[in-house]
Amino acid sequence: MLKLRKIDENNFMDVFELELDSGQEKYVSNPTRSLAQAYVYRNQCQPFGIYAGSIMVGYVLVIYDYETKEYNIWHMMIDKKYQRHGCGSEALDLIINYIKTMPFGESTEIILTCNRENYDGLNLFKKKGFKETGKSYEEEVEFVLPIIW
Amino acid sequence: MLKLRKIDENNFMDVFELELDSGQEKYVSNPTRSLAQAYVYRNQCQPFGIYAGSIMVGYVLVIYDYETKEYNIWHMMIDKKYQRHGCGSEALDLIINYIKTMPFGESTEIILTCNRENYDGLNLFKKKGFKETGKSYEEEVEFVLPIIW
Repeated sequence: MLKLRKIDENNFMDVFELELDSGQEKYVSNPTRSLAQAYVYRNQCQPFGIYAGSIMVGYVLVIYDYETKEYNIWHMMIDKKYQRHGCGSEALDLIINYIKTMPFGESTEIILTCNRENYDGLNLFKKKGFKETGKSYEEEVEFVLPIIW
Repeated sequence: MLKLRKIDENNFMDVFELELDSGQEKYVSNPTRSLAQAYVYRNQCQPFGIYAGSIMVGYVLVIYDYETKEYNIWHMMIDKKYQRHGCGSEALDLIINYIKTMPFGESTEIILTCNRENYDGLNLFKKKGFKETGKSYEEEVEFVLPIIW
């Protein structure tokens, strides 16, 4: 059973150790770089470590857009050592549940983008009910999930 | 003439491009990693880009310890393309002047550490009046500068 833990002074060093598998770097931003970006957007985002017990197995950043009132899931990744065990699916459920607590403000939808060649990601997001919005940004396809209670 | 500019959403991408010269990585933390650390200490620190005109030539993090009431200078670096032009010396003056504005709270001293083999750094800090405190942490020697008006 996975858990999300907020990144703080006790666990940030573990973020630096997370690694994508070869070839995945072009799909997902490096977690260290994402945490640097979290500094800039610190008033509208929450970075998490994804934990299996006491081990940080992945990372994700939840960010809120105060203008569009949308939650975005950014830079979700599972370390290469822990992939292929369903961690991504379980973590995504936790992230959606976190967003449903509306930590930054009200919203009716969750947005994310996925590289059009990241087939594992595309399958996961579609399985969870995310639908293509029709928008895309270079190689990134945008998806939306309505927030349903 | 150099300037310090706070890191924000308009300039953080330039932090990712800053590079140390070969062999310097063991002396100074990578700026992207430092900015990730700034997220964790966001209520007590200020990361800056060091600018020559519109070009970010370096990076530094100023951090305040609310318990000891000390300012620390962390991770100061000049990109390898702009080293050997006195940027470090000029930037350090700007950083000291910033700290004298007491942005996080009162203090009487500035602390930093320098790798004992980083001779350029050691020379610079001694030239500016920093004195060894006698403390060291593995390869890092601690220096202090009293804040004098």
